[in-house]
Amino acid sequence: MIYITRRERFNAAHRLYRNDFSDEKNLEVFGKCSNPNWHGHNYELFVTVKGETSPETGFLVNLKILSKLIRETVIVKLDHKNINLEVDFMQGKLASTENLAVGIWNEIEEEIKSLGAELHCVKLSESENNSAEYYG
Amino acid sequence: MIYITRRERFNAAHRLYRNDFSDEKNLEVFGKCSNPNWHGHNYELFVTVKGETSPETGFLVNLKILSKLIRETVIVKLDHKNINLEVDFMQGKLASTENLAVGIWNEIEEEIKSLGAELHCVKLSESENNSAEYYG
Amino acid sequence: MIYITRRERFNAAHRLYRNDFSDEKNLEVFGKCSNPNWHGHNYELFVTVKGETSPETGFLVNLKILSKLIRETVIVKLDHKNINLEVDFMQGKLASTENLAVGIWNEIEEEIKSLGAELHCVKLSESENNSAEYYG
Amino acid sequence: MIYITRRERFNAAHRLYRNDFSDEKNLEVFGKCSNPNWHGHNYELFVTVKGETSPETGFLVNLKILSKLIRETVIVKLDHKNINLEVDFMQGKLASTENLAVGIWNEIEEEIKSLGAELHCVKLSESENNSAEYYG
Amino acid sequence: MIYITRRERFNAAHRLYRNDFSDEKNLEVFGKCSNPNWHGHNYELFVTVKGETSPETGFLVNLKILSKLIRETVIVKLDHKNINLEVDFMQGKLASTENLAVGIWNEIEEEIKSLGAELHCVKLSESENNSAEYYG
Amino acid sequence: MIYITRRERFNAAHRLYRNDFSDEKNLEVFGKCSNPNWHGHNYELFVTVKGETSPETGFLVNLKILSKLIRETVIVKLDHKNINLEVDFMQGKLASTENLAVGIWNEIEEEIKSLGAELHCVKLSESENNSAEYYG
Repeated sequence: MIYITRRERFNAAHRLYRNDFSDEKNLEVFGKCSNPNWHGHNYELFVTVKGETSPETGFLVNLKILSKLIRETVIVKLDHKNINLEVDFMQGKLASTENLAVGIWNEIEEEIKSLGAELHCVKLSESENNSAEYYG
Repeated sequence: MIYITRRERFNAAHRLYRNDFSDEKNLEVFGKCSNPNWHGHNYELFVTVKGETSPETGFLVNLKILSKLIRETVIVKLDHKNINLEVDFMQGKLASTENLAVGIWNEIEEEIKSLGAELHCVKLSESENNSAEYYG
Repeated sequence: MIYITRRERFNAAHRLYRNDFSDEKNLEVFGKCSNPNWHGHNYELFVTVKGETSPETGFLVNLKILSKLIRETVIVKLDHKNINLEVDFMQGKLASTENLAVGIWNEIEEEIKSLGAELHCVKLSESENNSAEYYG
Repeated sequence: MIYITRRERFNAAHRLYRNDFSDEKNLEVFGKCSNPNWHGHNYELFVTVKGETSPETGFLVNLKILSKLIRETVIVKLDHKNINLEVDFMQGKLASTENLAVGIWNEIEEEIKSLGAELHCVKLSESENNSAEYYG
Repeated sequence: MIYITRRERFNAAHRLYRNDFSDEKNLEVFGKCSNPNWHGHNYELFVTVKGETSPETGFLVNLKILSKLIRETVIVKLDHKNINLEVDFMQGKLASTENLAVGIWNEIEEEIKSLGAELHCVKLSESENNSAEYYG
Repeated sequence: MIYITRRERFNAAHRLYRNDFSDEKNLEVFGKCSNPNWHGHNYELFVTVKGETSPETGFLVNLKILSKLIRETVIVKLDHKNINLEVDFMQGKLASTENLAVGIWNEIEEEIKSLGAELHCVKLSESENNSAEYYG
């Protein structure tokens, strides 16, 4: 069993808030992340897949193909977008790093299988100090 | 003459566009950065000041005081904000990295003098690949 | 189950030595890390907690609260301090990265539970080349 | 149980290809990595070992000794070398990051035991975007 | 006057040697960098251009266009290539970081002018410890 | 004219204080950096030299020789040392980053000339946020 990790990046706007909270309550719970005019991040996404190395290629998966899959499945939906308003798989969810990591997992899990590998971990970093990991 | 650099960080939303351009023209000129729903970045700001080292303290400027000055003068206006809508010194300007670096210079230049130093450079990084520098 | 990691930093002095070793023996076992006049590091501390995401907030834990807890529980004791002389939870222990990681775990484990999460990993980096991880 | 990680680096040339493939087939499967004139990388190697901390030294293993072991066992064979032509433990294997991580594991696993610790993970990074991990 | 820097990356093989030196002399002067079987690096290229910000776009140059120019002019010639054997503008030159930085400058200087900016600096990093800068 | 930069690292303890200040005054001026029990840093030193590239070697200076010179001239005096107590060229000076950068410049300026190059800049980083540069 070997593990391969591919890093991809996207820049996006978001806001943490609940519609059923007043502005004051949103500010109290989510702090300045609740700013109604949005803020944003350079997100770093680390996708780790696991499986057996192919004796024919020496690869678990071809990283160019893995990169293409991640970009076509999720980066295109996230990069230079507003996570709350524009990302289909985040509709009706709080745009936290935790929920975004789970959402990305759900979008790519089946796709990864088509490469002959298994998704192991989605790690999402929203700043140099904060990150979330999801293992399914 | 010695130079001291302090790094500060802020996360903000922005959009590159002109009101007098159509959506198509904005997309053509500014690409996905023109998204009307905004996107955002983790900006890194490097402020370099120059001058003589004080024989009394061994400092050009006390970096804690320089950090406080930068945070109170510009970071508080930029962090978790929408650069186009909320930042006073960017009103009426395109929210490019170039203009933002110049805007930050203008906000802090006089303040730095009050510390007994001279502003030398404002470097602003919007991603690991892109940055702007302004020397006045 | 989701995992969240918060990075905090501290700068400290330390020395690796045993009182019951001669200076020569300390030098032989601990090398230049045994310098009686101390040396120091910029430590990076990565605290990983695990648990369920709250449907109300989208958070496992609010990272601002986690950061505050780590800073008030351990960073205040470590930052700009001498680990051998001044850190209560390291008294009577060798000031190695291994022991420091375990010491930090013991200080914050119960506190993390008060946030409704479980401590998963304390990772401590003393340089770009050396780090220790403790999982309890 | 504690885990310690040591980073070492090496610069090497390699090529991904099979002798039993035509040039066209190699290009199709391995892309520009199949260039017959070679290309190269700055590899980062992270070796993680696990075990009990010694009460006498506060160390799981002395990191200077671990570093020396890694350098003398594998770095000397890899640094400024051609992985396909010159590295004994990679002969007859495709020079992929996956195979290289497994090869390094096999070279150092027994050696690590001589330090009183157990090899836990070999992580090999060939660029800021791509890495492989092997746990035996 | 504003300065903009774009980072691009390439992976390449090279060798430091002179044909008119014996193998022993090459080893003496260039060390392990003279390995006849090549070695390689992940190079980071930082291109800095200077000029006036356009009032119409807020840009000195559109970074997407600058990136495309750098990739089409030099990266395509360097990435996954052998610098000694395959890079036209390095033929007959020693493949040092210094010469490579100057070579890249000469390739892109005129092209940058076509963007309405002036080339200010080519910085080339061959490892985390070593880099060269050329200002024309 | 070409510029070459070599990075070296050292870990050291220090304290910012004046003997002719009371403890209260030292705390007021230097904050927690005045801790009488010391604290420390992982310093990063960037030495930039300038000159002409040798047509014989393609080098301004051989970076292995530059690295050896820096290590033998200053790193050996600084690494795992107490800057206030043990570093000869810092005696009688405040152990600030500014003074340390100037002190290192003075130690290596003449030595660099013996390599046929000229010292251009000493940059010293004491943390990811703070650095000083000296150009003579």
